[in-house]
Amino acid sequence: MNEKKPLPVGSVIGILGGGQLGRMLSISASQLGFRTHIFDPNPKAPAKQVTNLSSNFDYKDKEALENFASNVDVITFEFENIPAETIQTCQKITNVFPNVRSLSTCQDRSTEKKFLHAMNIPSSPFVTAKSFNDILQSVDTMDPPLILKTCRFGYDGKGQKIIYSKEEIESAASEFNDTPVILEKLIDFKLEISTIICRDMYGKIAVFDPTENHHQNGILVQSKVPANIPFSLASDAILIASKIVNALKYVGVMGVEFFVTKDNELLVNELAPRVHNSGHWTQSGCLINQFEQHIRAISGWPIGSGKRHSNVLMQNVFGEEIKALTKNSDSSVNIYGKDDSREGRKMGHKNFLT
Amino acid sequence: MNEKKPLPVGSVIGILGGGQLGRMLSISASQLGFRTHIFDPNPKAPAKQVTNLSSNFDYKDKEALENFASNVDVITFEFENIPAETIQTCQKITNVFPNVRSLSTCQDRSTEKKFLHAMNIPSSPFVTAKSFNDILQSVDTMDPPLILKTCRFGYDGKGQKIIYSKEEIESAASEFNDTPVILEKLIDFKLEISTIICRDMYGKIAVFDPTENHHQNGILVQSKVPANIPFSLASDAILIASKIVNALKYVGVMGVEFFVTKDNELLVNELAPRVHNSGHWTQSGCLINQFEQHIRAISGWPIGSGKRHSNVLMQNVFGEEIKALTKNSDSSVNIYGKDDSREGRKMGHKNFLT
Repeated sequence: MNEKKPLPVGSVIGILGGGQLGRMLSISASQLGFRTHIFDPNPKAPAKQVTNLSSNFDYKDKEALENFASNVDVITFEFENIPAETIQTCQKITNVFPNVRSLSTCQDRSTEKKFLHAMNIPSSPFVTAKSFNDILQSVDTMDPPLILKTCRFGYDGKGQKIIYSKEEIESAASEFNDTPVILEKLIDFKLEISTIICRDMYGKIAVFDPTENHHQNGILVQSKVPANIPFSLASDAILIASKIVNALKYVGVMGVEFFVTKDNELLVNELAPRVHNSGHWTQSGCLINQFEQHIRAISGWPIGSGKRHSNVLMQNVFGEEIKALTKNSDSSVNIYGKDDSREGRKMGHKNFLT
Repeated sequence: MNEKKPLPVGSVIGILGGGQLGRMLSISASQLGFRTHIFDPNPKAPAKQVTNLSSNFDYKDKEALENFASNVDVITFEFENIPAETIQTCQKITNVFPNVRSLSTCQDRSTEKKFLHAMNIPSSPFVTAKSFNDILQSVDTMDPPLILKTCRFGYDGKGQKIIYSKEEIESAASEFNDTPVILEKLIDFKLEISTIICRDMYGKIAVFDPTENHHQNGILVQSKVPANIPFSLASDAILIASKIVNALKYVGVMGVEFFVTKDNELLVNELAPRVHNSGHWTQSGCLINQFEQHIRAISGWPIGSGKRHSNVLMQNVFGEEIKALTKNSDSSVNIYGKDDSREGRKMGHKNFLT
């Protein structure tokens, strides 16, 4: 299990999670001549349309997981809310990348912030507590505006609340009640950027150029590369991301989100232990995209350089916007195969060369 | 059935043939949010690994074809040796692109040559006959060297024999016996090039830059773009290809192979009514590659411009060479999922940016 050598062509890549990221990982694995097995409780998970091997069980079903792990050659996951126990069950049988330490660190905002703090990596000031009442005790140390977040299961702006006064924290109690929370200083940033980095099992690192990201209501709307930042800042972002993946002995692709403050300071906002929405531009801007890169890394294949050949604008496609895509000829279109295009749901993305 | 409008996302694309071309078509269809259904008698056909809908029946099984056609929204094919009757059965139920006339024209060398001749499109001089004996009658009109080919089912140099004297034709009788054959003048060309062209159902045409192709033993080994030809020759190739797809009311991607003679004359060598090996470079050199382009065309979606952003070298990977790919980091790798890597078999390809 701890041998470090490339998986042969035809090996089976197990993917926990069958959403769009699992789907695009599966497609890239197929391109490399691997087979894929999608594990997701939802029988209609989009990734199951692009392979003929799949399982429909709960992530806590130990027997199903053991069976899954016994029938694949390596396992990865598409999202950070997989229970750590799921990974622990699987890794007794086969390799799982990224490792469980990386997953545990990134799936809890409080653990993540403490990890960054211990590494001397700049991020926003914060206090964290096991319960809401404890937060109230320590809040006097920070001036509003603040942002209150659940430690786990937040995504796309969900599980967050901006706080302008101590009274507002108190009144938020009912929303957050007994969940572990983290209270962070709200950063008045001028830009959000992210770096998609990959570390392979031999320790080699490759980074894609940082992108400039634009959000609406906490959801990524578009990413642009190159980002409108000085070269020195791009280098700093890459160095910070490298320090993070090295410390975690991380294998695979990670997304590292940063705030660029008004003083041109970089603060790490969030780590995503997986391929990342802000890296979808690599499908049209690089010879080897983030999905192929991730599959190469977890399979022990040499990873690509990350070099970019084109400038790209990536735009997410939400809800009913998907219907307009059939008129689109100037972008490469990726649609995720979701059957319900409810408002605000990410249905696909478009890449334009700019 | 004759309505010309874009298929909605989630529609099912039926693909006749489950080899590598069907596999890469299926992957591109998935990327566009379509589902795919692979029809191939071989239950282990490579394309069946990348979708969860497939059928294992003979191409002449009328009931199975009718059932298939009833369960998909449009049908295409990955190779020209599909019987025309297969298409005729399917098109009674749903749209099939390219049309049966294009298939019939291109699947028989004699029909193809006559079509080109009637269109005043230059190709090598030829005689054709229903049987070998008839060829012998007319051979005196052409000086050797000649090339004798079966009219159907030839590919990758199979079903061909170079003839240096009339005696050699006579002695080839046993090899070709009663098969319809065509005898062509062997062209002493300086370069082989090809053009990948696409025509959509509304009549719009887009062309990828011509590539320069290198063969060994009749099998494509590598394609390079841009081709080392004058701009005027590239334009001529594009104009000829456009004339061909317009005449056939072709819908989808076609590969047109040319010889460039020592006098810089262009002769059409062969038409392939499908995505083409010499167009695999588009996966790394264009925003919308030949597979996405074909799926867009047959689905009534607007096709891409064909614009190239990079110079590319595409190399085919044969037989056991596939094992060395796990050491490859400077090219994007495509492997076809075939289980038997016997000598000389096309197992995958690599794209390098040059």
